Amino acid sequence: MPTLVMKFGGTSVANLDRIKRAAKRVGVEVSKGYNVIVVVSAMSGKTNELVGWVEETSPLFDAREYDAIVSSGENVTAGLMALTLQEMNINARSWQGWQVPLITSSAHAAARIEDIPTKNINAKFDQGVRVAVVAGFQGISSEGRITTLGRGGSDTTAVAFAAAFGAERCDIYTDVDGIYTTDPRVENKARKLDKIAFEEMLELASLGAKVLQTRSVELAMRFKVKLRVLSSFEEQSDSAGTLVCDEEEIMESNVVAGVAFQRDEAKMTLISIADRPGIAAAIFMPLSDAGVNVDMIVQNISEEGRTDMTFSCPVDQVGRAQQAMAKAKDSGEINFHDLIADTDVAKVSVVGIGMRSHTGVAAKMFHVLSAEGVNIKVITTSEIKISVLVDRKYMELAVQALHDAFDLDKA
Amino acid sequence: MPTLVMKFGGTSVANLDRIKRAAKRVGVEVSKGYNVIVVVSAMSGKTNELVGWVEETSPLFDAREYDAIVSSGENVTAGLMALTLQEMNINARSWQGWQVPLITSSAHAAARIEDIPTKNINAKFDQGVRVAVVAGFQGISSEGRITTLGRGGSDTTAVAFAAAFGAERCDIYTDVDGIYTTDPRVENKARKLDKIAFEEMLELASLGAKVLQTRSVELAMRFKVKLRVLSSFEEQSDSAGTLVCDEEEIMESNVVAGVAFQRDEAKMTLISIADRPGIAAAIFMPLSDAGVNVDMIVQNISEEGRTDMTFSCPVDQVGRAQQAMAKAKDSGEINFHDLIADTDVAKVSVVGIGMRSHTGVAAKMFHVLSAEGVNIKVITTSEIKISVLVDRKYMELAVQALHDAFDLDKA
Repeated sequence: MPTLVMKFGGTSVANLDRIKRAAKRVGVEVSKGYNVIVVVSAMSGKTNELVGWVEETSPLFDAREYDAIVSSGENVTAGLMALTLQEMNINARSWQGWQVPLITSSAHAAARIEDIPTKNINAKFDQGVRVAVVAGFQGISSEGRITTLGRGGSDTTAVAFAAAFGAERCDIYTDVDGIYTTDPRVENKARKLDKIAFEEMLELASLGAKVLQTRSVELAMRFKVKLRVLSSFEEQSDSAGTLVCDEEEIMESNVVAGVAFQRDEAKMTLISIADRPGIAAAIFMPLSDAGVNVDMIVQNISEEGRTDMTFSCPVDQVGRAQQAMAKAKDSGEINFHDLIADTDVAKVSVVGIGMRSHTGVAAKMFHVLSAEGVNIKVITTSEIKISVLVDRKYMELAVQALHDAFDLDKA
Repeated sequence: MPTLVMKFGGTSVANLDRIKRAAKRVGVEVSKGYNVIVVVSAMSGKTNELVGWVEETSPLFDAREYDAIVSSGENVTAGLMALTLQEMNINARSWQGWQVPLITSSAHAAARIEDIPTKNINAKFDQGVRVAVVAGFQGISSEGRITTLGRGGSDTTAVAFAAAFGAERCDIYTDVDGIYTTDPRVENKARKLDKIAFEEMLELASLGAKVLQTRSVELAMRFKVKLRVLSSFEEQSDSAGTLVCDEEEIMESNVVAGVAFQRDEAKMTLISIADRPGIAAAIFMPLSDAGVNVDMIVQNISEEGRTDMTFSCPVDQVGRAQQAMAKAKDSGEINFHDLIADTDVAKVSVVGIGMRSHTGVAAKMFHVLSAEGVNIKVITTSEIKISVLVDRKYMELAVQALHDAFDLDKA
């Protein structure tokens, strides 16, 4: 029988009624003839409660005990889902990570999946079990201790099972109905995409990260697992949700797939810094050590051995960045004239694999923004993404203008 | 190093503060030089919440899924206790049932312990771990599925660990400070016993059942595990609590150890029933099938081939008993003139291993009750216990008079 993986997140299993609703979706796929592997998260709120207890008990906690504790939420949901399916006369049973076993590295709280032997679950499928309910987010190390994959790890669990079992598809049920061309709260003409390529999904992280953990998309891309994101709160149909897949499966697509944005960015500029080999490392190592997530980096042309270095980071990390730079200056590691922070900027990006074969996307983007009077402060580009920093007050305008110019409201 | 087992029930680990308090008690024993095995229950209320979800999901639940779900509460406490001990700089780690492994039968929700290999935990003790925190109440079957031992199973877990590791003692921390000669709410001169024999403890179930699961006492008796019951809410001292031990360790003791009672009993009498071989089975099999817990049974002398049969049961099972008897009469299995139910009786028992060697305890008991004008309705005796049914209104009087007559307020 063909196999399907279905993953239900915390809000989709938040209480017994929602578990029942999710179980009905599983029942539909079983009646189509699939053997189903259901991956469940903890009931929403449960993991936070457990993490809170751990952090209150031991601020610098032993990650092995953290894992043993926080993994318990998924075990409860897995058992309840199996019972609910049994009540519907579907042959189901639960598996905890160590029972599968889902074998991981020993990097507790952030373990990597190493292997998922299919023997135990397939033996039960052969005996007539139709649904294997698996507790997400958890595994077992070679030392026999419980590990977890990091927050949002249940998406990764689901994709890994789909890869291991050669599943026809991996359906991720969540509280949104798919991936949109942009955030509908900013552009009401935003359109749900039927399909999106893995690479686009990764670059659209700001639109998709709340929906799908980046790591699970990377894993799906590597093993060519078809991922479908869909809502557990709406009626199901074959065209529901968004399919995240290999670009070869997308026959025709717009050059640009979507417009992403990040509202609360800051632009920092180090004025007149000595331009010497190793200067970038001397700047960005201390920033990294201080926990500053540097995104865009632009270096001006050098004049008389000095240059300006501009970078962006989330606005709430500006203080930390300033401290780190002041400290590096005091210690003589770097030398600059001034550090200017512009905390009123936002990042806007257009993303699309079509850019690889179509030229002129960047030119069109700059033209559109210029026509709207939006000044571009920083530009960075990758093969399938162009990002600009603009004044925050122009962010919505920029998103709407680009969405319109690239015809994203039209399929 | 000598080993000690310490068990903390749900109220003793109800929140992070109480876990900390319990951990301090563990620290005291560690500093005395013990390696400690700590057995923990779920935080109070957690198991009931989980059981509620299971029963709401599936009234006739699959006990294997029930076990997988309800065992999660103990896992959380075990991890939190290990973290708390680590914060106190005590080398501790948690074990879930399957990690020990605590091997049980496959009778899910009521599994019997079959084996506790000591290898894994002893290896860690050898490496310097001082406290092994074990999730109580749970184990693993030969099929690799999680089992539970039934409610209150953490006491049994603790005793089984004490037996397996040859522990010097098994301390059961609970919300009372020991076993009393009778319930202090009925007799304010009730005295805490320093020691009590296993057999007495078993017969005093009505006094002790809330404190210590009967099954754990049976197990302790079989393996001669010294059990100490003590409060986790009072200051600790070497004489704290009550030691439940082999009778040989109790040098001198009162003939009677305690006075037990059960308030809500009923006395049922089948009038004029045909006295033939097999009649007792014909009466008590249907009662057992109907879930009636028959306690005392008295059969009158037979007259002209007919007799009366009296039995006692909890008062809330009278309706069920009446239905079962009416049905057996209708089907012709038994034939009786009338069924009289006296729902206003209570059971009072005196218990003591000293009775084996002392005669006259029964005579003294009857005399005391008679002197107080208490009429005895039914009598049963065992080697170390004499029980009587009396009108409920005399129960307190009977308990007080017997407590006084047998000098139970004096050590």
